[in-house]
Amino acid sequence: MSIRKIKLIVQYDGADYHGWQIQQGHRTIQGELTDAVTRLVGSETIVQGASRTDAGVSALGQSAVFEILDCPIPTENFQQAVNDRLPDDIVVTEAVETTSDFDVSGGVTSKLYRYTIYTGRIRPVLDVRHCWHVPAKLDVEAMNTAAKVLVGEHDFKSFASAKDNRESSVRTIFRCEVTAKDEWIYIDAEGDGFLYNMVRNIVGSLVEVGIGRWQADKMKEVLEACDRTAAGPIAPPQGLCLMRVDY
Amino acid sequence: MSIRKIKLIVQYDGADYHGWQIQQGHRTIQGELTDAVTRLVGSETIVQGASRTDAGVSALGQSAVFEILDCPIPTENFQQAVNDRLPDDIVVTEAVETTSDFDVSGGVTSKLYRYTIYTGRIRPVLDVRHCWHVPAKLDVEAMNTAAKVLVGEHDFKSFASAKDNRESSVRTIFRCEVTAKDEWIYIDAEGDGFLYNMVRNIVGSLVEVGIGRWQADKMKEVLEACDRTAAGPIAPPQGLCLMRVDY
Repeated sequence: MSIRKIKLIVQYDGADYHGWQIQQGHRTIQGELTDAVTRLVGSETIVQGASRTDAGVSALGQSAVFEILDCPIPTENFQQAVNDRLPDDIVVTEAVETTSDFDVSGGVTSKLYRYTIYTGRIRPVLDVRHCWHVPAKLDVEAMNTAAKVLVGEHDFKSFASAKDNRESSVRTIFRCEVTAKDEWIYIDAEGDGFLYNMVRNIVGSLVEVGIGRWQADKMKEVLEACDRTAAGPIAPPQGLCLMRVDY
Repeated sequence: MSIRKIKLIVQYDGADYHGWQIQQGHRTIQGELTDAVTRLVGSETIVQGASRTDAGVSALGQSAVFEILDCPIPTENFQQAVNDRLPDDIVVTEAVETTSDFDVSGGVTSKLYRYTIYTGRIRPVLDVRHCWHVPAKLDVEAMNTAAKVLVGEHDFKSFASAKDNRESSVRTIFRCEVTAKDEWIYIDAEGDGFLYNMVRNIVGSLVEVGIGRWQADKMKEVLEACDRTAAGPIAPPQGLCLMRVDY
């Protein structure tokens, strides 16, 4: 008997899905992947992911894994074979064999998310599924000053959703940067892990700073409050993209 | 009694629509615009367009027009007011009053279409609704040579769809250019008018040249055949975008 564990890098447009996690009666990314792999290998094979991205959230570097038992398909054929069985808005960019002790969610050392904001006056119809349209002049420098406050190990309870019931809300953010190009603004957040809705709550707060409703140094108060009512309004999901997961 | 004619420039993501033209039981661009304007002005007001784009085809510069009778809304308020009543994937970028003799389809002097092809190996999940994925090395120079053959006044019957029943299939193409950037290829076609499916049939033929199945000089034969079975396979709608309409 031979068991192989296959690790995938997956990209998807989350706009038409009810998020990553399998849900009865809804199209989900995990559901589509599990269905594709199951049809390929001929027996039910659940695909597990590194991040349970929310409805509307996209990914260019999600990691996922599945196990197969006595399967004759060579590992190098999985990428194409799974892609042939996936809808056009999900794709596997890499499929490699990994070790049996590889833990796709517990073993993560770093995740990088990018949040995209469009600040032009007219909503960008061809990109509207992948950005938050904020038709205002945002102060990128002030946003960057506020973002820097979050770098390091902190209790991020202020930026957690009420739905998050994990024991500790302490996480380490390695990098939180705001960059602008033409009318686009990108917020890159890299850390050892993120609480439920944490990136979107951070983005919502940074936009409060960007539009001038908050001073940049209010971010420190919000962080130190350890109170989820202290943060700004949550940013909508469609601007968020999981860019990379490291182990 | 005062009649005003309002001209719009409209952008839309065509991916989720059954094309421009109103159809019972289907979401269409004209249907959404007509509905938005009708709700705004309070009486049924059909919006007419310059081009009846197909299902899946997008636009960044469609022109449209509607008439209003004794309507108190100032012209400068129409853009925002219509946009507030449109779904996120349709937007009016300009609304101006025009003359009563303005003919939105008959008065067109030039239309510019852009067709987008992605040639990378992996399908681009975030752009897959707005391009044709051709995972191959295309010979852009040969495509350009073939494209040049089409410039000028010609009978384009070879590139018309059987569904096109307009009397003359003679049109003038002012410009037909193929450009490449990284793994993206853009085909810009500008002319005084296009037969039904003409741009997509031209693109399908240019791709035959690009992948080396046809020599560039076959384009002349195809054009001169005046036979719609002579052209290459039709390119899919999602790569096509109406960029501009001139009067």
